[in-house]
Amino acid sequence: MRAFLDKDFLLDTDTAKKLFHNWAENMPVCDYHCHLSPKEIYENKPYENISDIWLSGDHYKWRAMRSCGVEEKYCTGDASPKEKFEKFAYTLQYCIGNPLYHWAHIELQRYFGIDTPLNAKTADDIFERANRVMDQGDFRPQSLITRSNVKVICTTDDPVDDLKYHKLLKDTNGFECQVLPSFRPDKAVNIELDGFCDYIKTLSDVSGMDIKTADDVITALIQRADYFHSVGCRISDQAFDNVPYCEADDDEVNDIFARVVSGERITSEDAQKYKTKLLAALGEKYCELGWAMEIHIGAMRNNNTLMFHQIGPDTGFDSVGDAQIAYPLSRFLDSLNRRNKLPKTILFNLNDKDNVVLGTMLGNFQSSDAQSKIQYGPAWWFLDSIDGMTNQMKTLGNLGVLGKFIGMETDSRSFTSYGRHEYFRRILCALIGKWVEDGKYAYDEDILREIVEGICYNNAIRYFNFE
Amino acid sequence: MRAFLDKDFLLDTDTAKKLFHNWAENMPVCDYHCHLSPKEIYENKPYENISDIWLSGDHYKWRAMRSCGVEEKYCTGDASPKEKFEKFAYTLQYCIGNPLYHWAHIELQRYFGIDTPLNAKTADDIFERANRVMDQGDFRPQSLITRSNVKVICTTDDPVDDLKYHKLLKDTNGFECQVLPSFRPDKAVNIELDGFCDYIKTLSDVSGMDIKTADDVITALIQRADYFHSVGCRISDQAFDNVPYCEADDDEVNDIFARVVSGERITSEDAQKYKTKLLAALGEKYCELGWAMEIHIGAMRNNNTLMFHQIGPDTGFDSVGDAQIAYPLSRFLDSLNRRNKLPKTILFNLNDKDNVVLGTMLGNFQSSDAQSKIQYGPAWWFLDSIDGMTNQMKTLGNLGVLGKFIGMETDSRSFTSYGRHEYFRRILCALIGKWVEDGKYAYDEDILREIVEGICYNNAIRYFNFE
Amino acid sequence: MRAFLDKDFLLDTDTAKKLFHNWAENMPVCDYHCHLSPKEIYENKPYENISDIWLSGDHYKWRAMRSCGVEEKYCTGDASPKEKFEKFAYTLQYCIGNPLYHWAHIELQRYFGIDTPLNAKTADDIFERANRVMDQGDFRPQSLITRSNVKVICTTDDPVDDLKYHKLLKDTNGFECQVLPSFRPDKAVNIELDGFCDYIKTLSDVSGMDIKTADDVITALIQRADYFHSVGCRISDQAFDNVPYCEADDDEVNDIFARVVSGERITSEDAQKYKTKLLAALGEKYCELGWAMEIHIGAMRNNNTLMFHQIGPDTGFDSVGDAQIAYPLSRFLDSLNRRNKLPKTILFNLNDKDNVVLGTMLGNFQSSDAQSKIQYGPAWWFLDSIDGMTNQMKTLGNLGVLGKFIGMETDSRSFTSYGRHEYFRRILCALIGKWVEDGKYAYDEDILREIVEGICYNNAIRYFNFE
Repeated sequence: MRAFLDKDFLLDTDTAKKLFHNWAENMPVCDYHCHLSPKEIYENKPYENISDIWLSGDHYKWRAMRSCGVEEKYCTGDASPKEKFEKFAYTLQYCIGNPLYHWAHIELQRYFGIDTPLNAKTADDIFERANRVMDQGDFRPQSLITRSNVKVICTTDDPVDDLKYHKLLKDTNGFECQVLPSFRPDKAVNIELDGFCDYIKTLSDVSGMDIKTADDVITALIQRADYFHSVGCRISDQAFDNVPYCEADDDEVNDIFARVVSGERITSEDAQKYKTKLLAALGEKYCELGWAMEIHIGAMRNNNTLMFHQIGPDTGFDSVGDAQIAYPLSRFLDSLNRRNKLPKTILFNLNDKDNVVLGTMLGNFQSSDAQSKIQYGPAWWFLDSIDGMTNQMKTLGNLGVLGKFIGMETDSRSFTSYGRHEYFRRILCALIGKWVEDGKYAYDEDILREIVEGICYNNAIRYFNFE
Repeated sequence: MRAFLDKDFLLDTDTAKKLFHNWAENMPVCDYHCHLSPKEIYENKPYENISDIWLSGDHYKWRAMRSCGVEEKYCTGDASPKEKFEKFAYTLQYCIGNPLYHWAHIELQRYFGIDTPLNAKTADDIFERANRVMDQGDFRPQSLITRSNVKVICTTDDPVDDLKYHKLLKDTNGFECQVLPSFRPDKAVNIELDGFCDYIKTLSDVSGMDIKTADDVITALIQRADYFHSVGCRISDQAFDNVPYCEADDDEVNDIFARVVSGERITSEDAQKYKTKLLAALGEKYCELGWAMEIHIGAMRNNNTLMFHQIGPDTGFDSVGDAQIAYPLSRFLDSLNRRNKLPKTILFNLNDKDNVVLGTMLGNFQSSDAQSKIQYGPAWWFLDSIDGMTNQMKTLGNLGVLGKFIGMETDSRSFTSYGRHEYFRRILCALIGKWVEDGKYAYDEDILREIVEGICYNNAIRYFNFE
Repeated sequence: MRAFLDKDFLLDTDTAKKLFHNWAENMPVCDYHCHLSPKEIYENKPYENISDIWLSGDHYKWRAMRSCGVEEKYCTGDASPKEKFEKFAYTLQYCIGNPLYHWAHIELQRYFGIDTPLNAKTADDIFERANRVMDQGDFRPQSLITRSNVKVICTTDDPVDDLKYHKLLKDTNGFECQVLPSFRPDKAVNIELDGFCDYIKTLSDVSGMDIKTADDVITALIQRADYFHSVGCRISDQAFDNVPYCEADDDEVNDIFARVVSGERITSEDAQKYKTKLLAALGEKYCELGWAMEIHIGAMRNNNTLMFHQIGPDTGFDSVGDAQIAYPLSRFLDSLNRRNKLPKTILFNLNDKDNVVLGTMLGNFQSSDAQSKIQYGPAWWFLDSIDGMTNQMKTLGNLGVLGKFIGMETDSRSFTSYGRHEYFRRILCALIGKWVEDGKYAYDEDILREIVEGICYNNAIRYFNFE
């Protein structure tokens, strides 16, 4: 029996160990998509205790706790930090097979130096020890980022954001990591959601434009994209529950917009027409700016109305949709490509039934604009597990060119979640190492090193033109 | 090479062997969903020969035989028991990779003491030996159940059933297993199927109510649910080919019902509206009774019209559908949850493309009402195989809390199919054992024992409040 | 570490080695579906260099190259053979996990005697060596086919084809392989595509019939099927992006046809009605002729409009669709079966989300007409990989009868791609060998030999009534 979570965790062949310890482990991190707060990074406040770091904002953990019948007061409620930690420790012992189990223990080892397995019996002791370590060390965001060898962080930002903290961070002495904004225009796209009109008003204020038509929305967003670009943004991100694609002429789209602004209801097809126009115009702009366009497909959000009204979005009540995506995605990408305006694109799926669809969609639009111009994004959210990541990489291996993959991002809200890069790299090295040991890929140290270091860091840096 | 089907069958690590032989193997069975006949259990008649047990009602075996080009007379026709057995033995030798191959050999070993592999060459000899064993032993239903260490059986019963045999069994001396009814209202739900009006008439007779509206149907079913509860029922079961969800007001639903009763045709959307109302009312009732609601999603039945007319339903001509289920299922569960009326729920999928959809749907509605109140049902029917069960447990491990899983049921019509629990437990122990041996889960004997014994038996007993 | 691509490549157990080297390796090849050109086989011209064989028509390789940012001139353009080979070699080193990597190296070993791994460093040397081998040996199509031990080749032919080269090949001395046509009526089926009316005119000319109605189309195709049958055709093939099923009466279908011929637009539902009628009539004819009907489901073609206009179809811009197929496929097959007119049928899926749908669809229509009358076709195109083929065989093992599988075809356009049969056989033997070594299937040499030789060759020969 191998020891739990030792230095060769997940590395089940000699080649895997070599790939990881010689090369992968030492590469810096380019976290090209996450939900860290630039304000928190800038303000750099210390955490009070491990529950503060782990349980104050992590819907993965709350979800697991609720699945064990833990009451809400121990998740998002007013129970004490210690009580919350105890409930989480109790939960964790049943999470066999869950990435949470690995993430938590990797974080305990790497950031707190604790290698005791966490469970109901050990909870109180570990709570004390972890808090003691925190008292003695620097657990502020900038230090955690620096210790994790992170060179680039791309946050996720609304077009109306002033990016104040990104600018302040650029001038922060002694903090070397680049913190760049990403442009996420979802609120301007999702015309069918409550709050759309209010958002357009804010966009109008921020851009200084009188927004009367869909064309005006586009003009305002393009102006904001230019502003984001000036602050270092090189990536946009859009979340699609379904993939919208329905062409319409400009007058019709402006009419749809006008109806929404005047408080009328529109159909689902109307919403798609508006979105199709907006996304095409934005895609074209991203292409002109040399940005990469991320598309996250397949989340179904806020399923629990009761809890949504009680504690709001992003609290652990989201799941995975199963819409048909192949045709509209093909048409959307082709509509840009036809006009030579398809930007570098990264496609992410949340339902693994779509692996083959995305894995083959890439190949439709590759070109000499970039090495693997259309990327298959790493396994994400619910698929961010050993199985999910392995399947994503096997899919890309089978259907595309794995050696040009830009690799992992955290998609996280937590400053200790850089363990997920380590986790990813172990899985990558295990997969490649096994192929080599099984005689499925020729052993060549130079080539393997280039591939592994590329997927860990170099490919992303080159792809986004960072540094 | 390991011997075929020896005592460590499927247990490929030392930890797996330990988990199975020390703990899993000895746990009783709670078969919380099956299609056994309470009448047959009560009447307790002996079988005449092994073909009588194996081939008189098992559509899995008929299907495999037809796939080998075997004529129908050897499946459901009038060939002799020995001829049928020979054709099945011939078939079995080609069923490499099929759970039938394992089920049959487990049953031969456990119930007949025969460990010779069954194939065309050994068929006649095994037919004789098995029948000799049957002559000398007790192969009646109650004995088979008792020998299989089954403590609870939940049959599948129509709301109009009088549950006579369940009551008689409660008073049967020397038979300790609890045989409880489950409430399966499909015939009252499936308004679009032939026979609906006749069924409503029967329901009217049995409930003593004049059923004139959809509301009356609900009232009658609620009355029957109360009756079922009084006889020990704690579970309802519904089969969805698609997941219906379409809201409508009461008048419209009553109008749809009236049109059906008067012989008019309704649209598919009409049917959904009726079903949505009925299922919501039933769900609310289940919640009030503290029952669990099982939802089996994705069968596509009676595909072969010719054979359906010849030999009827449940004869091996069903397959798997591929409808979109995420959105309507979310809306259905939320509609109950919003009113605090969501019962304990067990979700089963038949198409493995839906694993991630269900695996994440659970988390939307967990609460402190129960430990893993929303359960991911074990791999079922076409997925009831090593691969299917392993994938279901990995999915639950990755996306939920595997340690709170209520585990296996047989879903079977046969009294020798309890080998499927052994099969499941070996697969469970192999999976967990491998994780532990690979250093992916900390070895802790107390915790592992609790998890394994929980999934084998204890979690189900606690979940359903049995004993 | 095992050597790369040695004689036991992929054979990871002793039983696997035995199955492969004793039996599988020596079986002839029945390539019952491919896109080889009978004209090229007949004309039997030599190739000029390895780029001519490898890169002049292989869209798999072009796709991989474009994914590495290689310019189009090195794919389909006018760069020199050596430059193209260098770009491909560069690409290949990043194709870790891709079947291309294995195919290319198997071909290098088997046809060129070169076992050096191909990459950017070795490209020039291998280019020279391979070309020298070609200069010294016979690399013409007939020789490549004969060396590959191919006994039967079924090409893919349009109903209007005169089959001249098939006839000529029948009389070619010294070339023993049977080259038979297959009947692919897609152009007569796809009424919604450009070029349909022109095609009908050609069909009219070839059949000598005045085609005025959909019924006339059927009559003409039936006449052509009879002609194909006389030249040795025993297989038809249809490609479905979606599975069409929508019943309509004859007048309506003839009206739809008339509208298309007169230049009117039709709806998607209209197209389905026409296709449903045509495919039912053709299926009936295939049944009468004793043919097998292949159905390839799920390709989404020509996604890149820009490149389509530049270099046409089948150039590497296709991907995988995700339509719902279960219900229409069931209805289509049942519509034939109800009239006792369902031919032998082989179902292929391109999206692995449909594995369980097809794996269970088979069982709905099996009968004593043939051993596994409804076949699950081998993993194809984007799924033609270790993972794809293993999953297809596991699916068939779990849900059908693997021992009656008719096995592999190349689906290829290249004369060196018979390495794919070797690749398939290694994967087959690895899978079965592992099951046996793990104690999951009883070791019986006679039975295993029959199963392996059956899947490699004998089952297909029997299924199609070849020889």
